[in-house]
Amino acid sequence: MFYIIGLGLGDPKDITVKGLEIVKGCDRVYLEAYTSILTCGKEELEKFYGRPLILADRDLVELGANDILAGADEKDVALLVVGDPFGATTHTDFILRAKEKGIKFQVVHNASILNAVGCCGLQLYSFGETISIPFWTDTWQPDSFFGKIINNVKNRLHTLCLLDIKVKEPTLESLTMKKKVYMPPKFMTVSEAALQLLQIIDKRKEAGEDTGISEENLCVGLARVGSESQQLRVCSLKTMSTVDLGGPLHSLIIIGPYMHPVEMEYLEQFRICQQQ
Amino acid sequence: MFYIIGLGLGDPKDITVKGLEIVKGCDRVYLEAYTSILTCGKEELEKFYGRPLILADRDLVELGANDILAGADEKDVALLVVGDPFGATTHTDFILRAKEKGIKFQVVHNASILNAVGCCGLQLYSFGETISIPFWTDTWQPDSFFGKIINNVKNRLHTLCLLDIKVKEPTLESLTMKKKVYMPPKFMTVSEAALQLLQIIDKRKEAGEDTGISEENLCVGLARVGSESQQLRVCSLKTMSTVDLGGPLHSLIIIGPYMHPVEMEYLEQFRICQQQ
Repeated sequence: MFYIIGLGLGDPKDITVKGLEIVKGCDRVYLEAYTSILTCGKEELEKFYGRPLILADRDLVELGANDILAGADEKDVALLVVGDPFGATTHTDFILRAKEKGIKFQVVHNASILNAVGCCGLQLYSFGETISIPFWTDTWQPDSFFGKIINNVKNRLHTLCLLDIKVKEPTLESLTMKKKVYMPPKFMTVSEAALQLLQIIDKRKEAGEDTGISEENLCVGLARVGSESQQLRVCSLKTMSTVDLGGPLHSLIIIGPYMHPVEMEYLEQFRICQQQ
Repeated sequence: MFYIIGLGLGDPKDITVKGLEIVKGCDRVYLEAYTSILTCGKEELEKFYGRPLILADRDLVELGANDILAGADEKDVALLVVGDPFGATTHTDFILRAKEKGIKFQVVHNASILNAVGCCGLQLYSFGETISIPFWTDTWQPDSFFGKIINNVKNRLHTLCLLDIKVKEPTLESLTMKKKVYMPPKFMTVSEAALQLLQIIDKRKEAGEDTGISEENLCVGLARVGSESQQLRVCSLKTMSTVDLGGPLHSLIIIGPYMHPVEMEYLEQFRICQQQ
């Protein structure tokens, strides 16, 4: 049997009882650690589970499905993923490959950022399409995701922005080489995301476009949701570009033009004053 | 401390390790059982936790916050909810009341239907606004939610439809009486939901409106997501109105006009042929 098990968002104890039992009984257990990260490392998980884990990096997950699935028709193999198993396309694809090989699979769900963002008090039913904000480079500065925010705002909905992470990303120079060289991991912060959004707003304003979103638009910065060190801040987009919420992972919510009174009351506890 | 703990969607073992530890150590533990249900009952949970639970029905949660929170400034009290704690407005409101009383609180997240629907293979990032379909009565047949589906379809997004549940609903006759009489619980099925949608489509078609959604629109019926008896079916809305997926809870997805190849491939395993 092949198991794909969600670990939730915080520490080792966020695994479900069902998930933990399976982890303890499996022959091989892989830890996927490039589409997201927990606030704890592999060692801490191994200590809690009382067993070794095999780190499944990008190469192993995207190219080495055969290695991971090897023998899973006779033995029990598990792939642990941060959040919920269906949070990333990669994992859906992985299950399809298991099915192709005639390997039975079982999914163990857990919290993901898509529902845990509710912790800021905004109602999950008032969110529109979720977007991803990628790291810009000097030559690649896409802003097509901004149209989705505009659309959500028009529909009076909030927008959850998932912020880019780069883990085990090969350097441009090493892409053609036999031995890849990897860049240090980096995780987009709420201030970096807000800065990119402000640049897009400015550019479109200059071009005469009325996006309906200004630097005064309220937003929520979230860091390490679901962990003990979770931090939330509510302020304007402009102020968010100067906010430091500490270590990864960060997410950003663009608040829609309408809030329910309970949403407003709940958010108030995370409000920071506008900086002059 | 007041704890609000998500139980996930399936059986007793879907609680997280963190959640279970808290449940075992609390003075009083309430089980909220009217905004959603697990596939197991209170007795099974009590057996698994090795402790008694207090059933928190609608009256107790909405009117009896004082009772539930009593003494939580000195003792440990937990409220268990199906799915994730922030899945229902009621729970957000509950935390606000704890804050008003100066009671510290901690949230333990878990899977909710909002992320677990990913189990059908549709990407969570391709969903628009989530809607709720209410039970119609002879005199109350609202269809305003249909506008949101139209909007999602226009934006090439899927729509998750949460289906109404009525638990401990007082009868109309007993509303003015001192002693309320309650209706038997009922849970909307995918076929009931599809039937209501077909009626709305027909009505709007007759009125000359082009909704962009027809009885041939593909949809996914989901039952008891996250449990061992989980069932998924993919078919037209018309066929869905005849499909029986067994016991509660059910959810329905209206598939948007665009699917990624991986989404299509994954859905294929749940496809049922059109009935003649």
